[in-house]
Amino acid sequence: MHDPRVPETLEGWSVLHQMFRVRWREWEALGESDRDRRAREAAEVLAGMQQGAEGSTVPVTMLGHKGDLLLIHFRKDFEALQAAQLAVARLGLAPFLEATTSFVSIVELGLYEMTGRIHQRLAGQGLEPGTEEFEAAFDAEMKEQEKRVSGRLWLEPPARRHVCFYPMNKHRGEAKNWYAEPFAERGRMMLEHGKIGRHYAGRVNQIISGAIGFDDWEWGVDLFADDPVVFKKLIYEMRFDEASVWYGEFGPFYTGLQFSPSELPKYLAGAVPALQ
Amino acid sequence: MHDPRVPETLEGWSVLHQMFRVRWREWEALGESDRDRRAREAAEVLAGMQQGAEGSTVPVTMLGHKGDLLLIHFRKDFEALQAAQLAVARLGLAPFLEATTSFVSIVELGLYEMTGRIHQRLAGQGLEPGTEEFEAAFDAEMKEQEKRVSGRLWLEPPARRHVCFYPMNKHRGEAKNWYAEPFAERGRMMLEHGKIGRHYAGRVNQIISGAIGFDDWEWGVDLFADDPVVFKKLIYEMRFDEASVWYGEFGPFYTGLQFSPSELPKYLAGAVPALQ
Amino acid sequence: MHDPRVPETLEGWSVLHQMFRVRWREWEALGESDRDRRAREAAEVLAGMQQGAEGSTVPVTMLGHKGDLLLIHFRKDFEALQAAQLAVARLGLAPFLEATTSFVSIVELGLYEMTGRIHQRLAGQGLEPGTEEFEAAFDAEMKEQEKRVSGRLWLEPPARRHVCFYPMNKHRGEAKNWYAEPFAERGRMMLEHGKIGRHYAGRVNQIISGAIGFDDWEWGVDLFADDPVVFKKLIYEMRFDEASVWYGEFGPFYTGLQFSPSELPKYLAGAVPALQ
Amino acid sequence: MHDPRVPETLEGWSVLHQMFRVRWREWEALGESDRDRRAREAAEVLAGMQQGAEGSTVPVTMLGHKGDLLLIHFRKDFEALQAAQLAVARLGLAPFLEATTSFVSIVELGLYEMTGRIHQRLAGQGLEPGTEEFEAAFDAEMKEQEKRVSGRLWLEPPARRHVCFYPMNKHRGEAKNWYAEPFAERGRMMLEHGKIGRHYAGRVNQIISGAIGFDDWEWGVDLFADDPVVFKKLIYEMRFDEASVWYGEFGPFYTGLQFSPSELPKYLAGAVPALQ
Amino acid sequence: MHDPRVPETLEGWSVLHQMFRVRWREWEALGESDRDRRAREAAEVLAGMQQGAEGSTVPVTMLGHKGDLLLIHFRKDFEALQAAQLAVARLGLAPFLEATTSFVSIVELGLYEMTGRIHQRLAGQGLEPGTEEFEAAFDAEMKEQEKRVSGRLWLEPPARRHVCFYPMNKHRGEAKNWYAEPFAERGRMMLEHGKIGRHYAGRVNQIISGAIGFDDWEWGVDLFADDPVVFKKLIYEMRFDEASVWYGEFGPFYTGLQFSPSELPKYLAGAVPALQ
Repeated sequence: MHDPRVPETLEGWSVLHQMFRVRWREWEALGESDRDRRAREAAEVLAGMQQGAEGSTVPVTMLGHKGDLLLIHFRKDFEALQAAQLAVARLGLAPFLEATTSFVSIVELGLYEMTGRIHQRLAGQGLEPGTEEFEAAFDAEMKEQEKRVSGRLWLEPPARRHVCFYPMNKHRGEAKNWYAEPFAERGRMMLEHGKIGRHYAGRVNQIISGAIGFDDWEWGVDLFADDPVVFKKLIYEMRFDEASVWYGEFGPFYTGLQFSPSELPKYLAGAVPALQ
Repeated sequence: MHDPRVPETLEGWSVLHQMFRVRWREWEALGESDRDRRAREAAEVLAGMQQGAEGSTVPVTMLGHKGDLLLIHFRKDFEALQAAQLAVARLGLAPFLEATTSFVSIVELGLYEMTGRIHQRLAGQGLEPGTEEFEAAFDAEMKEQEKRVSGRLWLEPPARRHVCFYPMNKHRGEAKNWYAEPFAERGRMMLEHGKIGRHYAGRVNQIISGAIGFDDWEWGVDLFADDPVVFKKLIYEMRFDEASVWYGEFGPFYTGLQFSPSELPKYLAGAVPALQ
Repeated sequence: MHDPRVPETLEGWSVLHQMFRVRWREWEALGESDRDRRAREAAEVLAGMQQGAEGSTVPVTMLGHKGDLLLIHFRKDFEALQAAQLAVARLGLAPFLEATTSFVSIVELGLYEMTGRIHQRLAGQGLEPGTEEFEAAFDAEMKEQEKRVSGRLWLEPPARRHVCFYPMNKHRGEAKNWYAEPFAERGRMMLEHGKIGRHYAGRVNQIISGAIGFDDWEWGVDLFADDPVVFKKLIYEMRFDEASVWYGEFGPFYTGLQFSPSELPKYLAGAVPALQ
Repeated sequence: MHDPRVPETLEGWSVLHQMFRVRWREWEALGESDRDRRAREAAEVLAGMQQGAEGSTVPVTMLGHKGDLLLIHFRKDFEALQAAQLAVARLGLAPFLEATTSFVSIVELGLYEMTGRIHQRLAGQGLEPGTEEFEAAFDAEMKEQEKRVSGRLWLEPPARRHVCFYPMNKHRGEAKNWYAEPFAERGRMMLEHGKIGRHYAGRVNQIISGAIGFDDWEWGVDLFADDPVVFKKLIYEMRFDEASVWYGEFGPFYTGLQFSPSELPKYLAGAVPALQ
Repeated sequence: MHDPRVPETLEGWSVLHQMFRVRWREWEALGESDRDRRAREAAEVLAGMQQGAEGSTVPVTMLGHKGDLLLIHFRKDFEALQAAQLAVARLGLAPFLEATTSFVSIVELGLYEMTGRIHQRLAGQGLEPGTEEFEAAFDAEMKEQEKRVSGRLWLEPPARRHVCFYPMNKHRGEAKNWYAEPFAERGRMMLEHGKIGRHYAGRVNQIISGAIGFDDWEWGVDLFADDPVVFKKLIYEMRFDEASVWYGEFGPFYTGLQFSPSELPKYLAGAVPALQ
């Protein structure tokens, strides 16, 4: 049943963020040819994960102590994510990677406006929620939408140098509670929230994924930009947004530089790897 | 004494969730025949834990860093759970498993409607709570209920691919407090909450277990589905529920793929294990 | 000075809860005769700690990952607790025990009713708090009480199979604050709270200890029962209690099976140890 | 400028609390003569830290898992604290000590009454805050105070057996906020708070140190007593205090037995060390 | 678009705080000449990081267990920060450093007054926010400002002995919420806040950096002073400030002594290193 309180969502890639600390000390203790061999194997495996329609994997070298290496896997389903996780676990490099954290989610488009419009249209046709007719008509509309936005559900990761990832919740407090707000109010606030993002169009790309039922936060946000100051300006401005002021709860922030899989050996030899 | 503020509960399986990280690095360092032997022994022990009336054990390969392997043990009592825990601790595989977390609980049916009805019926018979007659009559009614629902208390774990586990509490805040709500209000909210679940009937199976007195959250929820998106849709929809909006507190979420014990060696050799 | 806002307390055993994880992997790596020797030594030391008037030590095998072995030491004072802690630290078994957590407290009887009654009685005699006469009379009354309840201050640990331990606080919030409630209100709530406990008399034994000044929670609660479902029912029912609804804050819960010291070698060899 | 909202403080010893777990397992693995040598060296270094005017170091054997050994260093400044920290880090015993936590602070006297009185007196002389004259007069008054109380700023640690340490904050909540209370209200509450302490005079000694700008809590409290029950009674009684009810936030509590440096070898050989 | 709710910010150095624990035990186990060689190499690398226009690195020996060594890297961009992080990770000293935490940020000037003034001035010229003219004029004004304050954006780290670092947030609560306050109110509070800082001019230097989008707190604060008591006095006084009372949330505090790179070998040999 399509519950009129709930914004419809459309789903795309299954996503796994894996954060690793590099055990530099033990890595350095290996002989050079051994390091070379393992680095090249890992680079090849990562390069092989750039498979277009089957998904891709984005490598990021991170700033700070939360991790050195972030891998963002986009895959068709959880089976394929599990396969990616196992493939990484079995690299010759794996003994030198220590998992510090992770995030499991599915790329998601939340459709406040569209949901409201479909409910109105079907009501205008005299259909009632919960009836077979209503539900079938609603499903048909959603299928239509899905086709229209499939490019955003199954997108290619943006080839920009700087990456910012953070998870977030909508606040469910005793006084301020997102889920207790009427649908129209939530829709209005999300619309206003989206407008700020649009001022930054061209300077930043954003991927939202839903994690309810999969991980400890409700959503994950990935931002990609050429200049990292854009992350700070954008998120600071959004903080003055009604939706964020009262309802935005933010988890840890992870920041780093995207690079090309072929640069991995360079990185493991101590140089900042490039994005080609 | 049957306290009219307290919904009666019926109890079934004792349950232990064990989350483990696989020490891949040390596992890989073993010789192949040694790995084979340990993997086969573990697979046999797990297979031997599928004992029907004595209980069963569900193996799950997990996504993300919170653990690689989840074992869900269903047993007749805590003695048998302890035996299962010790049996796992002494596997040849055990030195390569690192316990990351766990959850101790007992399968539970919370009976808001039934409790209300029995109190009414006995009041209608002129019986008063606390009197011997009342208590005996109440106990007899509960015994009857227990027979009726024993299939749900002592169920077989659903053979579905995707598994989602999370613990939860009912909020006890300064303004919003589940335990301060009148019985009838709580009953009404739980009824509405249950209705959402029923929209998903056929697509998801749910096992609720009670952990008050045993672990750090009040309840544990296990969901089983063929398609993991169902977890996201169901839990998101429930979040708009009055019982969840104000009173639902959710712990960490664990997600993965159920597999057959006989597939364990395949998993330990790096392939995604199947559910047969 | 006896402050009329403060319920008097009487103190008995000093108590140390020690939770340990067994390093099964390293334990198994020992030769069999070495394990035997260390297990027997540990069993003897634990058995020697059952000294009646000098105190005793309760061994518990725990469910879940928070620990495998719980030792509850009851001693005459902190000097003797420290000696017990050092004795355990120096067992041949100690290198295979990893301390996961602990709790330091003193068995305590909180005397709301009695405190109120003594204040009234002395006021009736025209004595005023703070005067030497009042204080001496009060102290004399307390000495009397102490004799009367010494059996509960210096009790033998109940020989029941299932054990549940948890720490707790009284809430000190901005709106609801236990310590801001008038003495009479607190007394009334504690009385009602105690009544629930009495419905479970015979099925469960309870030891309350005070930890203010010693550990991170205000009190510790140990429950002993033949059937662990009783823990769940009792604590769930209490949660609807006014004192718990608004003021009860509960820490982590630890659950397990009490066993006899002589069964320790059996446990360390992988079998569920018995309580004889 | 002397801000009339802010109580003046006077500063004495710089203080470093260091909590260590003893790696008993690795310590025991040393040969006896090696242990002897390292234990004697550590005892000598600790004994050498009892330097009167230069400061002193208090060794405490702790109850529970938060640490085995607590060292409280009192020194003239941060340079000398850093030297003490390095001296401990380089002991032959150091490889067998694992730092579990620490606390950095400076002994502090908070002068609510005095601050109010000086402001009044200078106002009575027609001086205005912020003027050069006012500030100079104020500074002169404070110098005077400092001489008067220097014994409490540069005290010798009390030679009592039982030690209790905990950090604390004043609550800064949305409804109750210490720093939003008028100076006079805060002064009144602190006065009342101090009175409870005075009922325990003779039975307990207290050292307050300020940690704002140095560590994660605003103050640290060290209590010293012959009987540890006094800690429980005192802190419980204070909890009913207006200043504590609404504004007292307490961190972890650490408890143990003070001992003489010369007893360290005895302790490291497994016996409870004495305070001589 | 220049949103009138948002204070403009100007950005300077990219900053990475790295906190390390020294593995003294393993360091001491090295041969003396090996230690010498590694210490000298590390000292040379750190000295080479003092590159003026390219940035610099401040070494600090820390008090307490949160870390022994703090390195504060100031660089032109994230590429250069990543290079600094990799350079440290590959020192011969690196295997003896364990990262305990870190902080990623960019030096920031928040311009409440200026933002308000520019908005007013452009309004006075009849320009409207969002129009091309307005935005261009605003950008031009900001460029002007940037030149004027570039000395504060690209400053040299102050050569003072004592260092204090802490991260902070502006509170976003259900009742008190910084981001819901009108621009003018926020501006007024920040002005008052700044005045306290000015009373301490000459005695303390302060560097503010913004971490929104980069790390888990919104800002980082570095203070430098000759006398550490100044940190305590300043931060205590600020706590009575309206902006701090209701909106200041403070993270962990880190304290230590700045030293010269050339003193590193002395430090690693156990002596307190000097600032030359």
